[in-house]
Amino acid sequence: MKNYNVKKNTICPLRKSLRRILLYRGSLLRLQTLGVKRVYSYTLGKETGVSAEQVRKDFSVYRIKGNQRGGYHVDKLIADLESIFYHNGSQNIIIMGRGNIGSSLANYSNFIQRKINIVASFDIDPSKQRLRSEIPVYTLDRLGEVVKRFEVKTAIIAVPDIAAQEVCKQLVELGVEGIINFAPVILKVPSHIIINNVNLSDEIESVIYCVSQPGPLST
Amino acid sequence: MKNYNVKKNTICPLRKSLRRILLYRGSLLRLQTLGVKRVYSYTLGKETGVSAEQVRKDFSVYRIKGNQRGGYHVDKLIADLESIFYHNGSQNIIIMGRGNIGSSLANYSNFIQRKINIVASFDIDPSKQRLRSEIPVYTLDRLGEVVKRFEVKTAIIAVPDIAAQEVCKQLVELGVEGIINFAPVILKVPSHIIINNVNLSDEIESVIYCVSQPGPLST
Repeated sequence: MKNYNVKKNTICPLRKSLRRILLYRGSLLRLQTLGVKRVYSYTLGKETGVSAEQVRKDFSVYRIKGNQRGGYHVDKLIADLESIFYHNGSQNIIIMGRGNIGSSLANYSNFIQRKINIVASFDIDPSKQRLRSEIPVYTLDRLGEVVKRFEVKTAIIAVPDIAAQEVCKQLVELGVEGIINFAPVILKVPSHIIINNVNLSDEIESVIYCVSQPGPLST
Repeated sequence: MKNYNVKKNTICPLRKSLRRILLYRGSLLRLQTLGVKRVYSYTLGKETGVSAEQVRKDFSVYRIKGNQRGGYHVDKLIADLESIFYHNGSQNIIIMGRGNIGSSLANYSNFIQRKINIVASFDIDPSKQRLRSEIPVYTLDRLGEVVKRFEVKTAIIAVPDIAAQEVCKQLVELGVEGIINFAPVILKVPSHIIINNVNLSDEIESVIYCVSQPGPLST
């Protein structure tokens, strides 16, 4: 375990701007549905809760240019933003664990729209293979084969916390480089691995805490 | 709609330190299970991916003191951290929408452990009332009654994106002040409302993007 280090989930320096790019795209898709043809950085900023300057700065990182007078063409801007993500085509990912969270993600229709291909899921319980789901459920003995065949570089960990580190270790040994971790533990991984920890209890608890505070103490 | 503004999800200024506090607690609970009695800010920082200075600074915000020589007592520290959250006792929350995400959250056993009481869930589809689940499923006509009876101040929105803004509006009108939003839209709310947007596609997509980048362009 000597070469395993605790990683912060900010390893990819583009992550913050990237999250905003994803917000802009979500907002643009809604505007497109409403028939909007042109948009200003000001509008996009207002829709997504950031400043107009930040919107322009984020776009400039990806070399996306608008017209100061006419703003941005909605259709073209969406295409430009999508090219940031899909320049490598769609990506094959797997889900480890078919409990509540794993199954919920496997059935989440938004992913298809976003060109996230969930090619398989895994569970130690063989009875899970009979689950009604479009995403096949395999036992762990097929993990190596599936990762290789579909060139899987990213995996979702949705196993119980006691199993998460072991599953993570197996994934890393098979060449997986990106992990979205839903288990409420901090995983130890080599330094080149990108980890995003999503702790649903924390997301909820922090809101509950803020609501129950009459006035915050400090930052 | 004039008094509705787009909010950033950083409205509670304590949120960042609070998220770290939640990480520290998770790490401490694991250490406690392993029989560890004392812990140093250095250890906690290493476990959670932040600096020892940051750990001490976060604790000082909540007036938690350690002993420079002996570090912190694990049991006492957990109790101190928990008192930050539970000084008002446990909190009743509701889930709007019993699709995949809503049902997955309703069945998530971690919440009980964390004193998050999910008292009810709601869905427009009356057939959902027959779901096998410990959390009752009601139709929307009982929303007002449930919010009042259980003094609900926080709600989870897990409805389809087209319904999210309307559901949010109803919750706000009933006095709900905190919202965890799983719908991939930016909700417009009055300025006193605390919103936390959790977009699972974005969480996954940002990792996929980072993995597919040989070297990041910029921050």
